[in-house]
Amino acid sequence: MFGARCLLLALRRCSSAPCPKHKQAARLRVCEALEAQEVAGDIKVQGWVRSVRSQKQVLFLHINDGSSLESLQVVADPTLEHRDLTFGSAVEVQGKLVKSLHRMQNVELKAENIRVVGPCDTLMFPFKPRERQPLEYSRQFPHLRCRTNTLSSLLRVRSEATAAIHSFFKDNGYVHVHTPIITSNDCEGAGELFHVRTSNKVQEPGENSHFFNVPAFLTVSGQLHLEVMAGAFTQVFTFGPTFRAENSQSRRHLAEFYMVEAEMSFTESLQDIIQVMEDLFKTVTSIVLSKCPQDVELFHKYISPAQKVINMREQTATCLYLANSLGSVIPYTEAVEILKRAPQTFTFQPKWGRDLQTEHEKYLVKHCGEVPVFVVNYPYDLKPFYMRDNEDGPQHTVAAVDLLVPGTGELCGGSLREERLHFLQSRLERYGETLWLITSSSLGTVWQGSVSEATGVWWGKE
Amino acid sequence: MFGARCLLLALRRCSSAPCPKHKQAARLRVCEALEAQEVAGDIKVQGWVRSVRSQKQVLFLHINDGSSLESLQVVADPTLEHRDLTFGSAVEVQGKLVKSLHRMQNVELKAENIRVVGPCDTLMFPFKPRERQPLEYSRQFPHLRCRTNTLSSLLRVRSEATAAIHSFFKDNGYVHVHTPIITSNDCEGAGELFHVRTSNKVQEPGENSHFFNVPAFLTVSGQLHLEVMAGAFTQVFTFGPTFRAENSQSRRHLAEFYMVEAEMSFTESLQDIIQVMEDLFKTVTSIVLSKCPQDVELFHKYISPAQKVINMREQTATCLYLANSLGSVIPYTEAVEILKRAPQTFTFQPKWGRDLQTEHEKYLVKHCGEVPVFVVNYPYDLKPFYMRDNEDGPQHTVAAVDLLVPGTGELCGGSLREERLHFLQSRLERYGETLWLITSSSLGTVWQGSVSEATGVWWGKE
Repeated sequence: MFGARCLLLALRRCSSAPCPKHKQAARLRVCEALEAQEVAGDIKVQGWVRSVRSQKQVLFLHINDGSSLESLQVVADPTLEHRDLTFGSAVEVQGKLVKSLHRMQNVELKAENIRVVGPCDTLMFPFKPRERQPLEYSRQFPHLRCRTNTLSSLLRVRSEATAAIHSFFKDNGYVHVHTPIITSNDCEGAGELFHVRTSNKVQEPGENSHFFNVPAFLTVSGQLHLEVMAGAFTQVFTFGPTFRAENSQSRRHLAEFYMVEAEMSFTESLQDIIQVMEDLFKTVTSIVLSKCPQDVELFHKYISPAQKVINMREQTATCLYLANSLGSVIPYTEAVEILKRAPQTFTFQPKWGRDLQTEHEKYLVKHCGEVPVFVVNYPYDLKPFYMRDNEDGPQHTVAAVDLLVPGTGELCGGSLREERLHFLQSRLERYGETLWLITSSSLGTVWQGSVSEATGVWWGKE
Repeated sequence: MFGARCLLLALRRCSSAPCPKHKQAARLRVCEALEAQEVAGDIKVQGWVRSVRSQKQVLFLHINDGSSLESLQVVADPTLEHRDLTFGSAVEVQGKLVKSLHRMQNVELKAENIRVVGPCDTLMFPFKPRERQPLEYSRQFPHLRCRTNTLSSLLRVRSEATAAIHSFFKDNGYVHVHTPIITSNDCEGAGELFHVRTSNKVQEPGENSHFFNVPAFLTVSGQLHLEVMAGAFTQVFTFGPTFRAENSQSRRHLAEFYMVEAEMSFTESLQDIIQVMEDLFKTVTSIVLSKCPQDVELFHKYISPAQKVINMREQTATCLYLANSLGSVIPYTEAVEILKRAPQTFTFQPKWGRDLQTEHEKYLVKHCGEVPVFVVNYPYDLKPFYMRDNEDGPQHTVAAVDLLVPGTGELCGGSLREERLHFLQSRLERYGETLWLITSSSLGTVWQGSVSEATGVWWGKE
């Protein structure tokens, strides 16, 4: 924690004498208390009451502070009961951590003092103890829904995954870049952009109301900025919000979502990129599983019970198995053949040269035994001009890769970048665009590859 | 690095036999090579040429890959020279790391093979070796300016500081939250908001062109969302982009900048908040100083040479001294007295009840011996309604704190939140706003405090 919180600031200002040590109860988070085996002296726990059970001889409370799904059991003398000590109230409990006789928990807090910091009107409070409400119900109470298990688990998992992504890239020597959110470029020409303006008023004809003198949009990708950075840093990444103004009500399209994007210079083959995707996936998965096993279990049990889960150990093993079984690599051409031979009928007929649909991706994952699958070498005409030509006609492909995972389909994608100037030039000429390549000859162009991962799709959906 | 990159994917697919080990030169980043004392076997370094010096007996190169300010010296036989081996070209050098006889470096790379991966037309390349250009010049070449020392140092420092901020909060038990960027709320009523629209076209009268059915803005602060989260997690933080549509050309106001914001529940006093600010400042400062000493030195020497810096050790000591001398705490009322007694004339006359201007902040920092200073307890009427009333009239103040630092002035601020419902109600009634408090009685309101830090001001300025 934050070291000696008890420092008297007045003393610090007026003298250089060491600050006297106050004997104060150590504050523990609930997750720390639950993991503690033995703690000498008094501790203090602060949180919200999840249950109150008053018996003749003893008062039982459960306290949750958001640090874990599990609550801490408090055992107190019934004299400590108070009319404000209700479900939802905010309390501070001081006492001793003792071994619990209950088989469901290691320790419990034997309370010496309970202070109600903030009372809660249980009649007005929209959630009740031990009641599972649908997400549509919780959505009406955005200021309170984080107190539900589902939302707090989701946020803990997301927090751990975010931290794991940052540390993965940091540990592997990547420079983190905050690419601009407001931008005048339109990365892939998607067309579905949000416009940024200073004023809501109807514009007079001829009036220049652009704050930045040019039309400004919300970024759809930091890729162009990262590609520039990759001309000075061999490995760069960004992890920020991206925006699409697609008026889609599907679960797979969000107006605002977070995306991990990485660019690596001196990338020689798709294998370099696949390796990064694989390492990132494994690292983040195993960190989340080790830090939030109960939160993940909650989702497996109640939110998306796609797989039969018998106990936590088995479920963790299943996820780790998924993470460790990465590695099936199927060329797009072979994938289409597999789909054509499939005994099932697809809404979209699989055909070489067409995009893989989610139904196709899910079939491929199933075909490989419900493990993550890399599909490589997509048709040249399907992919943006900057992907590297495999020069493998007649079935002309580029060095691109997508990672498909069970349940979701496409999780992330990447490609080798075309570094050969004449390939870029001739391809751009087909689109009638040549201008912006004029400076390329001074770039010291190198092989380059990318990884990008739409985390919104991965864990942001409710 | 990414483990065994050499795994043959085909083999992985077709058999479970262990992958044969290729004897490949280990790829080292320049910073790793520079720190290595001895490396057995061949290594490979990839990067951009910073200088070429050809002598009769020997060819000297300096290679930079963005991992450090310092470049790696390469020593090669003149026969390895190539006409494409110029300043700015991208190369891959293979060889052995040997002890250098030069006093400026520990090691050098004795090249066995040099491959020019991407040539660079030195005539077209806008930067020359050993030439220091003003930032206004570099700004014309956004795709190349990261190759300059100033920009690459800036980005390395920012990357390290970003990582340090994330790990500081993570290590102290905070849950990271991605607060929304597109929002319909206007946190502090600042009024200077960017509007988000889907279309640039002139709106027909009566037409509802709102993508989200309501007017949508870019966030000015994640505070309101974090305050809600702090009702379920005792410690939360966010570190994301925030936006102000202020048409200001000053160096202190950016349209888009990054801000660290944290909310803590169960905060009992300003000291809790000051402690977090202090710990955050010290942690980030010492991590940046230990990871990027040369980058910081570059800025001290050439970009903002405010302090006389004799050598790196001394400069690091100065910064550490600054970080460790945090702790002067001055009440606002006393600060105004200090300013009134100041021998200098201010553009803005200091007076109780008025905001501190940058000139005042800088004087206070100087007055305290050019060390960081906390100013606490600001006038009630200066601050937003949610800050906690100190009930200390006639000079009525709230429990707010600002951290002022040498060179910048205000670095971050925070406050205790008013948790007493009747205080909030009576204050809001003065503004004629009561509606949104109707649910407060079910909140289980607790003491709460915040820290926010505008990193744009701190290190984002050029």
